[in-house]
Amino acid sequence: MPSYRAPLRDMRFVFEELLDAYTLLQTLPEQRELTADLGGAILEEAAKLAENVLAPLNGPGDKQGCQYDPQTCSVRTPDGFKAAYQQFAEGGWTALACTPRFGGQGLPHVLNMLVEEMTCSANLSLGMYPGLTHGAINALTSHGTPEQQETYLPRLISGEWTGTMCLTEPQCGTDLGLIRTRAVPQADGSYAITGTKIWITGGEHDLVDNIVHLVLAKLPDAPDSVKGISLFLVPKVLEDGSRNSAFCGGLEHKMGIKGSATCVMNFEGAKGWLIGEPNKGLSCMFTMMNSARLMVGMQGLGVAESAYQIALGFARERLQSRSISGPKAADKPADPIMVHPDVRRMLLRQKVMIEGCRALAYFAGLQQDIAHGAEDAETRSRAGDLVQLLTPVVKAFLTDEGFTCANEGLQVLGGSGFTEDWGIEQLVRDSRITRIYEGTNGIQALDLVGRKLALGGGRAVRAYFALVEGWLKNNADAPHATAVTQALKQLQQATLWLASEGSKDPEQAAAAATPYLRLFGLTSLAWLWSQQAQLAQRQLDAGSSETHFYAAKIKSADFFMARILPEADALLSEIKAGKATLMAFTDEEFAA
Amino acid sequence: MPSYRAPLRDMRFVFEELLDAYTLLQTLPEQRELTADLGGAILEEAAKLAENVLAPLNGPGDKQGCQYDPQTCSVRTPDGFKAAYQQFAEGGWTALACTPRFGGQGLPHVLNMLVEEMTCSANLSLGMYPGLTHGAINALTSHGTPEQQETYLPRLISGEWTGTMCLTEPQCGTDLGLIRTRAVPQADGSYAITGTKIWITGGEHDLVDNIVHLVLAKLPDAPDSVKGISLFLVPKVLEDGSRNSAFCGGLEHKMGIKGSATCVMNFEGAKGWLIGEPNKGLSCMFTMMNSARLMVGMQGLGVAESAYQIALGFARERLQSRSISGPKAADKPADPIMVHPDVRRMLLRQKVMIEGCRALAYFAGLQQDIAHGAEDAETRSRAGDLVQLLTPVVKAFLTDEGFTCANEGLQVLGGSGFTEDWGIEQLVRDSRITRIYEGTNGIQALDLVGRKLALGGGRAVRAYFALVEGWLKNNADAPHATAVTQALKQLQQATLWLASEGSKDPEQAAAAATPYLRLFGLTSLAWLWSQQAQLAQRQLDAGSSETHFYAAKIKSADFFMARILPEADALLSEIKAGKATLMAFTDEEFAA
Repeated sequence: MPSYRAPLRDMRFVFEELLDAYTLLQTLPEQRELTADLGGAILEEAAKLAENVLAPLNGPGDKQGCQYDPQTCSVRTPDGFKAAYQQFAEGGWTALACTPRFGGQGLPHVLNMLVEEMTCSANLSLGMYPGLTHGAINALTSHGTPEQQETYLPRLISGEWTGTMCLTEPQCGTDLGLIRTRAVPQADGSYAITGTKIWITGGEHDLVDNIVHLVLAKLPDAPDSVKGISLFLVPKVLEDGSRNSAFCGGLEHKMGIKGSATCVMNFEGAKGWLIGEPNKGLSCMFTMMNSARLMVGMQGLGVAESAYQIALGFARERLQSRSISGPKAADKPADPIMVHPDVRRMLLRQKVMIEGCRALAYFAGLQQDIAHGAEDAETRSRAGDLVQLLTPVVKAFLTDEGFTCANEGLQVLGGSGFTEDWGIEQLVRDSRITRIYEGTNGIQALDLVGRKLALGGGRAVRAYFALVEGWLKNNADAPHATAVTQALKQLQQATLWLASEGSKDPEQAAAAATPYLRLFGLTSLAWLWSQQAQLAQRQLDAGSSETHFYAAKIKSADFFMARILPEADALLSEIKAGKATLMAFTDEEFAA
Repeated sequence: MPSYRAPLRDMRFVFEELLDAYTLLQTLPEQRELTADLGGAILEEAAKLAENVLAPLNGPGDKQGCQYDPQTCSVRTPDGFKAAYQQFAEGGWTALACTPRFGGQGLPHVLNMLVEEMTCSANLSLGMYPGLTHGAINALTSHGTPEQQETYLPRLISGEWTGTMCLTEPQCGTDLGLIRTRAVPQADGSYAITGTKIWITGGEHDLVDNIVHLVLAKLPDAPDSVKGISLFLVPKVLEDGSRNSAFCGGLEHKMGIKGSATCVMNFEGAKGWLIGEPNKGLSCMFTMMNSARLMVGMQGLGVAESAYQIALGFARERLQSRSISGPKAADKPADPIMVHPDVRRMLLRQKVMIEGCRALAYFAGLQQDIAHGAEDAETRSRAGDLVQLLTPVVKAFLTDEGFTCANEGLQVLGGSGFTEDWGIEQLVRDSRITRIYEGTNGIQALDLVGRKLALGGGRAVRAYFALVEGWLKNNADAPHATAVTQALKQLQQATLWLASEGSKDPEQAAAAATPYLRLFGLTSLAWLWSQQAQLAQRQLDAGSSETHFYAAKIKSADFFMARILPEADALLSEIKAGKATLMAFTDEEFAA
């Protein structure tokens, strides 16, 4: 059975050595007391929890799944989930990055992302319950009334209660303008919420006594579009202890994350309260969504890391055939499959993409904290641009890669990987949803080419390019600087093409969106790998004793540039192919 | 729920119009009476069976799975499988391409491949029972004694009995030299077989009364390598009606193909008979394996087709958001998601890869029949070279693409795709194994660069290149001829690089194998797409009334060249990156 070990060394390398995160965070007034020692201790504790408490429940949770009782409309989570969740909450992990005003620890969000990575490596299904609560916390913190905040935030932050995001309905997923759930004002200032929501993560479960639903619904006189959506708070249990009429109508039967309760929720005149202004629900929702999207990226990364560990462990133990260059384990009946070039190719593809993605995610996460907490408005704005720009890339690129890496890991195991015995097929199934929820990866790509490139008339993307160009100018002798320069030029070409063609015809931008997002991700990883190799070389030159670690960084950068980055050429071609190749087909021709 | 429709129009296009298969088959003495009418009627009957009998059992079979009874060591297949199998056998489908000497219909193997495509689209799990039987039939036909043939072939061919291939053991999958199962000669000329085999498809089930196991085992004095393996026939029920001591010890719990019984088989001094010569089991096994590999390619293709149909149906019905270029279904609350460029990109990627793969597979299958049945030895040899060369490409490229297409299809459905309701997540799970069994796709790539490029000192690959070059010379004005020429040049460059570097250092070839196989597949598809577009244009020019069908072919070729073929550049870069990027890592550095 798999046993996950948190990759603390690499996490620290990215966080401290590559990003110098503690120095940067200490410039934020609220983080002046955060030291590397404190951060390191927190990560070590999180690692223990993930390894010892969450990970052992992952396989059993998948096999047992959640059980729905139609008599009581209740949901039972897999054995052990409740105790583990309580340990998680009591350890303060739900409160880590929340505001101290309501009992949070006020630590940086990016630190929470590192914790989330480990949680999701260990047990994605279990990690989703507290994960979704953060959406509710963020929405209430930004848009709740003081009374709403006082009532709900302390209990959500402590983990005593959990939260949900109730967006999707049977007829509407991506297109929220189609929402039918209605909110009728009541004399006491509350609203009666009626409608059916589907795919509600943690909509009902037995981990805690109360669940706070954040529900998108329409007021009676609301415009018939996304401009007519409002956000409501609907607790499962009301303040007087009575049960609100928000009931789970059943569970989805899913390909994966079977330990996570994905509920149909029926609101039958349930009592709710408006959050924020009427008809402004969509912007409140994006408050929940944006940081949730970074977190989903961490889910992709976390699962990929677990899969890599399983695949590497297998490849070291499994004996099949001899190395082409002569026996490597002559005392054994065959060599470990690690010796075979094609097995190494699969393993290294995982390792190099995982470490590159980790760097990208932490970089974006750090910008998020700077955007919220820097003293200087310009610094906040610049960082805010960057995190907005990078959020769809982190969400889509990391979840696509998470799934790809899990699959590549399964392939290393051959037939063993296809059986349930090794736990890796579960990772493939679990990771599959991360490419879909919180906005499908196609929607992320449209967000990138539509909203994010347009931010401030292109200000955000120009600032990002300037950042990379500035680094290249000062580090022309860094390993692979030429390759990074070349990749950046391709990305800039693609961006110019989008700006020019997309402004004439937005369908051109939509047709290019997915390969453009991937090109953006690859180019960003190229830059980050060049930096990692440079740092590693400096450490080796300075006589560091961690020769394996740093040498691996240098070789990983070589691998990335030689075997992964060339895809950028193909992506640029695909982008420039334009919409004609997609739009030329008539409906009949699709099935011809 | 999904309802599969056999894509008979495209199958006929590839088989008749593109490959002119009936004309070519009629040159084979044994196929002189095969007409297009007869072939067409057979395919229509197979389509009905797949659509009406096999497909409805696919989802239920996955949910119910196979049940093992440890008391009786028996396996129960899902409800309905037995009756459907019997209908399959009684309809003569097991006998289609088998020799008339033992009751077969003697039709071409390639026709059976088309039937297999439909069977696997409809129900991969159910299709595997008769599919595996073909391996046993082929081995017995080629290597069995007349007595063995008389006893077993009629009943295997009629489908009254099924067959298995018992290769894998816990300690050996890819490396068959590690086999421990022993065969001890008995006084009566039989052998006592003892050992444990795992992952045996159809090792035990309730579809038929007898199962004929073909088992790899070692004779007492056998060399300790693959040169010491012999092949044995071990029936579940002996000729006197007594039960042989070959028992199922349990079922694997798998990610997919849950309706297919994947058995642990314990042979406890079971009575068996040698097939072929002692210690020549491996070559007998490859007789089973090679045509099985083409069939696994058809499994990948078949599942991809089913997934495409589900995704297309969903995209036509699901209403979300408006087209960027203005409403397309103004009378509805939103447009079908088909209108969105990124959804079209996903659908077309599937459609274009499926149709390209179909052409490649049927082309290879046709060569197989020519190789077996042509009058002229040189024709047989030339076709034999081609089918040997293309077999690993068909197996690996089609199953990689089958899985990718199923996943792309799931993505079109968004959250719905992740639920069990739409049947597409099952296709993702089912197709995953096809990249692994009958030799992992990594092994296929090694087979291509190791054995197949070396065939006759490069004769096979030179002949293939000459074929494509000859076509290009005569069809310089075909659509995309320039792109095909360019792709072929890249493949030839890669082949030269392999020949030169690989001869100096075989690890160089192994390091390049997987991207090389993919480049081979893409280049072949480019050639086949150019031909399809040319044919379609001619039909339109000649005033064909099937304008949708032929126009789609032309646009699909455009899509392939603009959006898929550019990957070839990246693959060539990856190939030339060489082994250093893989072999430089020390063991410690993988986990550093």
